[in-house]
Amino acid sequence: MNFRADIDFAREMDAQDELTSFRELFVINDPALIYLDGNSLGRLPKATITLMQDMVEQQWGQTLINSWNEGWLGLQERIGAKIARLIGADGDEVIIGDATSVNLFKLAWTAVAHNTPRSKIVTDDLNFPSDLYILQGVARLAERPLHIQIIPSPDGIHGPVEQLAQAIDEDTALIALSHTVFKSAYTYDMTAVTQLAHDAGAIMLWDMSHSLGSVPADLHTANADMAVGCTYKYVNGGPGSPAFMYVRRDWQDRLHNPITGWMGQRHMFDFGLTYEPEPGLRHFLTGTPPILSIAAIEPGVDLLLAAGMDKLRAKSVLQTEYLIYLWREWLEPLGFSLNSPREAARRGSHVSLGHPDGARIAQTLITEKQVIPDFRKPDNIRLGIAPLYTSFMDIFEAMGRIREA
Amino acid sequence: MNFRADIDFAREMDAQDELTSFRELFVINDPALIYLDGNSLGRLPKATITLMQDMVEQQWGQTLINSWNEGWLGLQERIGAKIARLIGADGDEVIIGDATSVNLFKLAWTAVAHNTPRSKIVTDDLNFPSDLYILQGVARLAERPLHIQIIPSPDGIHGPVEQLAQAIDEDTALIALSHTVFKSAYTYDMTAVTQLAHDAGAIMLWDMSHSLGSVPADLHTANADMAVGCTYKYVNGGPGSPAFMYVRRDWQDRLHNPITGWMGQRHMFDFGLTYEPEPGLRHFLTGTPPILSIAAIEPGVDLLLAAGMDKLRAKSVLQTEYLIYLWREWLEPLGFSLNSPREAARRGSHVSLGHPDGARIAQTLITEKQVIPDFRKPDNIRLGIAPLYTSFMDIFEAMGRIREA
Repeated sequence: MNFRADIDFAREMDAQDELTSFRELFVINDPALIYLDGNSLGRLPKATITLMQDMVEQQWGQTLINSWNEGWLGLQERIGAKIARLIGADGDEVIIGDATSVNLFKLAWTAVAHNTPRSKIVTDDLNFPSDLYILQGVARLAERPLHIQIIPSPDGIHGPVEQLAQAIDEDTALIALSHTVFKSAYTYDMTAVTQLAHDAGAIMLWDMSHSLGSVPADLHTANADMAVGCTYKYVNGGPGSPAFMYVRRDWQDRLHNPITGWMGQRHMFDFGLTYEPEPGLRHFLTGTPPILSIAAIEPGVDLLLAAGMDKLRAKSVLQTEYLIYLWREWLEPLGFSLNSPREAARRGSHVSLGHPDGARIAQTLITEKQVIPDFRKPDNIRLGIAPLYTSFMDIFEAMGRIREA
Repeated sequence: MNFRADIDFAREMDAQDELTSFRELFVINDPALIYLDGNSLGRLPKATITLMQDMVEQQWGQTLINSWNEGWLGLQERIGAKIARLIGADGDEVIIGDATSVNLFKLAWTAVAHNTPRSKIVTDDLNFPSDLYILQGVARLAERPLHIQIIPSPDGIHGPVEQLAQAIDEDTALIALSHTVFKSAYTYDMTAVTQLAHDAGAIMLWDMSHSLGSVPADLHTANADMAVGCTYKYVNGGPGSPAFMYVRRDWQDRLHNPITGWMGQRHMFDFGLTYEPEPGLRHFLTGTPPILSIAAIEPGVDLLLAAGMDKLRAKSVLQTEYLIYLWREWLEPLGFSLNSPREAARRGSHVSLGHPDGARIAQTLITEKQVIPDFRKPDNIRLGIAPLYTSFMDIFEAMGRIREA
């Protein structure tokens, strides 16, 4: 693509964008505001307004307790099955559980408990810190000494693939990585890394929080064992909406949930006194689920399915390439560095720009320039592109305002 | 109180009820429907409709990511501090966490880990089954062999206080009980049982799911160590709304959360690679909280605070006594048994009636008689009284319809 730095180019690209109509399906009331933080909190789908009104006033207010039998009890499986279609899994392999960190705790714990007597968990220093904290907690709880090896990225941007290959060995129980990492948007080759894990007899657990809804994945092709991921970023499920869990079917009944609650109990309404896990994925559930926050996930998933992950990815790549082109034209001369991979295949849907004065610039953008990025220490200005609603004009305008900030 | 079984008596009681105006603050659109399941899912406060519209359309849709700084990050503490006023705790001792079962897992695990080398958890068979499953999970994870002693109730109705006193010994690490039990509504003397625990050097953990909002408690007077409880029953927080955690202040920094996530991390936005717990109660949090479901808790808490727990309890006792009076007049002759304590001081806010044909009767009530109780095997028809909105006429009408069912 031959990009140009004039405003007409952005207009032309938007005119050619076959996903442009999806933008109309989101609440965007302030046309001057450019929101590039959909990778932290996705925008509100218009359909969610109607749904939440129905959830509160009709399903809770009118149907009351009967709503549990009329859909709430199966809601986590129903939305999970839709997410499965986004990530190349079967419907009974994905379920909405608790927060990403709690889901990760459950799966990491059981992976480590299963893969005895191996004593090592391998991850990298690009992983989301909460994932590292969870792994540290799992290590503390394990019945045997467990060591967490945090492989450093060579440059703070790219995943340390070669060093991971060296670290993963016969003593490795679990490898836990972010599919797309939160700072640089580096995106692992899921198939290749999963193969590394399996070659060593280790279990592979992916955190897809920053890829779900923007970077396609095919968990079956990758032969991934487990995955988790949040639904409030590119899925647009609302603040803190609960996360999904994926457990490949052949693993489901061989692994155990450490937090054994009644939502995972076989014949739960028999109220037996002894825990007996429901077969399949459901025994990874625990307590009564927060229905309002879970229901809000579905409209965003429906929009992703309607748009199609391939088209979303194509647009996202084009838009991050365009952003990087404008960086080179306008911002590199001003001292901004590119803190994301240049290779599109290894890049997710946000671009991080570094600047020694990054914290001030990010603040100026928010308070004076009506651009909402986010900022990650020490110097990362993250610009998130949500291909469902981010326009080329958004990117053109935002980069122009950054130039002036 | 001299009860009478005529309709005028119910009218007179409603006319004298000083809490009667609170009923108007709930959505009750079908006057023929008598809802006696507020102990499973509380009704919808009218204020929640407006709040949820604001949460979705304004706070999420318009303010977007900035809402995290404008209130969402502190929401769990803010609502927790209000709940503290309902249960005799300080504001910094109560926080909204995850589901009741997940909260219970965290607190039971750390209690057991702290109270080494004791090898026993004591509970009873009236406890909510999910609590037993969680304790069983905690026992599986413990570093030492742990035995769960489930003390049977002598009659399936009353708590086995004497047998508990015998079972609690120098080897008991933790005692976990429901304050008000889910089937019979038996309510423990929190102060006396906590004293039993402390006399033996054990830690006391109360599940207040069936008492919060209907039975007063004073955790400081009882000197309770820990408590959890859901917010979707008498608190009217909406389906599956997350639960509270109480940890007495002097325990907070001596105990550890096993599920160590970023919401409990000190200086969380520094994104350090090593978990370091935030002092106080906050380190018991884990992942990004489901904001919509949490926000929905607050209007119900405000209504309880406005009504006052003492007045709510007085009305609740009067109403359960009235219900039991009508049972004796009308239903005992038809073969219904009273499966709840007769002594008001030991009874929560629901009454269980047993009948050999209970399952069919409960079904008939729902499908033909416009009465919503719930049913718990083998024969319990649970009639929940929510003093914020249940009227004496509701009880009169419901008991009349049960007589005909």
